[in-house]
Amino acid sequence: MIRGVTVVPVTGPEAVIRDGAVAVADGEIVYVGPADGLPDGFTADRVLGGPGMVALPGLVNAHTHAAMTLFRSYADDLPLMKWLEEAIWPLEQKLIAEDVYWGTLLACAEMLLGGTTTFADMYFFMDRVAAAVEKSGIRASLSRGLIGIAPNAEKALKESRAFVREWHGRANGRITCMLGPHAPYTCPPDYLRKVVAMAAELGVGIHIHVAETRQEVEGIKKQYGCSPVALLAETGLLDLPVLAAHCVHLSPEDIAILAAKGAAVAHNPESNMKLASGIAPVTELLTAGVTVGLGTDGAASNNNLDMLEEMRSAALLQKVAREDPEALPAYAALEMATIGGARALGLGDKIGTLQPGKRADIILLNLRRPHLYPPHDVVAHIVYAAQAGDVDTVIVDGNVVVEGGRLLTLDLDTVLDNARHCALRLVGKPKARSLL
Amino acid sequence: MIRGVTVVPVTGPEAVIRDGAVAVADGEIVYVGPADGLPDGFTADRVLGGPGMVALPGLVNAHTHAAMTLFRSYADDLPLMKWLEEAIWPLEQKLIAEDVYWGTLLACAEMLLGGTTTFADMYFFMDRVAAAVEKSGIRASLSRGLIGIAPNAEKALKESRAFVREWHGRANGRITCMLGPHAPYTCPPDYLRKVVAMAAELGVGIHIHVAETRQEVEGIKKQYGCSPVALLAETGLLDLPVLAAHCVHLSPEDIAILAAKGAAVAHNPESNMKLASGIAPVTELLTAGVTVGLGTDGAASNNNLDMLEEMRSAALLQKVAREDPEALPAYAALEMATIGGARALGLGDKIGTLQPGKRADIILLNLRRPHLYPPHDVVAHIVYAAQAGDVDTVIVDGNVVVEGGRLLTLDLDTVLDNARHCALRLVGKPKARSLL
Ligand SMILES: [Zn+2]
Ligand SMILES: [Zn+2]
Repeated sequence: MIRGVTVVPVTGPEAVIRDGAVAVADGEIVYVGPADGLPDGFTADRVLGGPGMVALPGLVNAHTHAAMTLFRSYADDLPLMKWLEEAIWPLEQKLIAEDVYWGTLLACAEMLLGGTTTFADMYFFMDRVAAAVEKSGIRASLSRGLIGIAPNAEKALKESRAFVREWHGRANGRITCMLGPHAPYTCPPDYLRKVVAMAAELGVGIHIHVAETRQEVEGIKKQYGCSPVALLAETGLLDLPVLAAHCVHLSPEDIAILAAKGAAVAHNPESNMKLASGIAPVTELLTAGVTVGLGTDGAASNNNLDMLEEMRSAALLQKVAREDPEALPAYAALEMATIGGARALGLGDKIGTLQPGKRADIILLNLRRPHLYPPHDVVAHIVYAAQAGDVDTVIVDGNVVVEGGRLLTLDLDTVLDNARHCALRLVGKPKARSLL
Repeated sequence: MIRGVTVVPVTGPEAVIRDGAVAVADGEIVYVGPADGLPDGFTADRVLGGPGMVALPGLVNAHTHAAMTLFRSYADDLPLMKWLEEAIWPLEQKLIAEDVYWGTLLACAEMLLGGTTTFADMYFFMDRVAAAVEKSGIRASLSRGLIGIAPNAEKALKESRAFVREWHGRANGRITCMLGPHAPYTCPPDYLRKVVAMAAELGVGIHIHVAETRQEVEGIKKQYGCSPVALLAETGLLDLPVLAAHCVHLSPEDIAILAAKGAAVAHNPESNMKLASGIAPVTELLTAGVTVGLGTDGAASNNNLDMLEEMRSAALLQKVAREDPEALPAYAALEMATIGGARALGLGDKIGTLQPGKRADIILLNLRRPHLYPPHDVVAHIVYAAQAGDVDTVIVDGNVVVEGGRLLTLDLDTVLDNARHCALRLVGKPKARSLL
């Protein structure tokens, strides 16, 4: 049970419960409301919370590549193709399973400490990613990345089926799976149709990068005579539950298609800014009724996995891009980072708000800090002023995994040292500003 | 003395000293270099630092209104004029001296804990601001805000003179003063000429808002037939040392004038984004040789005073605005937040880098955190991944004011409670999401 806190359940813009309580039984939320409205006779094994604390749903990182923490700050301030071809891809080719394990554990540690309780991942060596998720106590939707034009494209599909069969629903339901065709420009339509058939067979959704850069849109247009979104619709992919990452360059027709098909978008403002990809039409997507979640993308292009910061960047970027200070107000950004992301991952009925019947993914922020005082507006504080370091307590699926800002599920020194060790092996000779 | 740390002196993009040391005597830096190069016979009263720590110059917040922390998250997501007329100005009219004292102390606490050792402030009740600066141990350049079209315009000028005479150089030189004409649209040319004459008489610079919004530029153009920058040049104001805040809407001619006159700009990316003012031509200003510092602006439009975050936003915003991932690389952002700001405040010979002969304004960041691992590039980590909570130690003018993330100069509870008390009196009835 959590009591003596302010509860922001993210069930409406004005829904703020002062002196509130959240009761949890068997990993499920059984009460959310005023502390004095708790059911008679309810007794708690354990009581968390206290003055200055705010309880809200765990944050959902709707798009990342967790193990890329190993490449954090390895290459920055470079043109996209140079960054990929000379820095990221050569390192990725050297990755072994253990790198992905330690890189993902590092990401899980960072995310949990920063209030993220769920993430959507697309990468490879996914068994090791799943093992890291299981161990760290976080919740995740996992997709093995599929490159249709790669020599191992068919093998990767088979591995995807085996991965979904082994892991979907595991770890008490904390792990779910999707198929992960990388993007329309790396997966030709025939390959996408195979992915669609397999996703339908397995009963899972699809996680894919869409319309991230202008060059991608122009390339698809040139090759297929239509937009990436229209191409996906043509393959039947949008008839399944889809998590479409980026969606930076969309036409009004694309937005209408996404809305009509019920596809969800993962918006990654900081990655899009850092790689100079562009500014996604988030306001238009929300207006059209598209579900929008928020993601950090990989740590190579961000360079952290901080969802509090990402909310702020999302809100500020929409305002300046549209020259409209009313664009993407604080509560809309908070929704994107919680229930929006939950819905985008197909978990809208399980997590994303604090409501009875949902799994207990709950975080406590400590607002008794100079940068969060005076507390005029708790939602604006969370979005515009809070930092990852304000996260005091994190509960996933009813289990306390962070308390007093300390991670309980992993030995941090082991994770940091192993991640450093992997990074050192991958890069060979460190660069001038490296401290490896 | 600081040893056993990595030193980033901000004296060049590749200047990183592993296993470095910084020695301080009488508040002045006397050695920066490898730990094993320390002068023979140097003994320290006190040794700070340790594994995982990075020493860098204290951050310089080149433009803020510190006491506006009292309005943090009071009004957000509103059009500029509604925000000013219905929210901010009515509150400011109720402000009394004690509000400004506690609001400024709150700001100083937040800034010191986040690694900011110097700030440039423009507000009123400046004696109380100076008292808060003196007490907190921070360094500041203070300007009494002057509104030329207000009834008290002449009185405010006189008060400015008295304030400069009383405080310039006080607190062992930690406090310096400038004159603070608010903006070209609130200070007519004749009034600006009086300010210029007084600044020349007193031997201080001028802190002013310039070209923040498109409406301002259009209004000045309509009234005077020229741009705000050209108008300032015409009054002689740019012949003095000038700190020009914002400079969002500049023509190439404006940039050439600023460069030729040696005026400095305080760039405030998050405030400009949040108020949807626009995107300042930072890359062009730097290319033209203009000194650019970085500021948060007041907490009412940010909503924190976090310079690590502001660096990141500055870099990301330039990249996406110019569709160029190479724009404003990490080191350039770090320069803006340190030596750029120091120069902009007229303190370039005293602070802003770690070099012998400069005052000892030094911060230590703890990089042994998941979100800062592995340490491929210490500069990219500082700019793209660090958060205020990573600041471990802060030294201003040779005095340790933050240690182990704890503020030593102020009683935080007293500051928080008084700030809350002031805020409560100012707003009257709190709003739905208020926790006052
Ligand atoms: Zn991605
Ligand atoms: Zn200002």
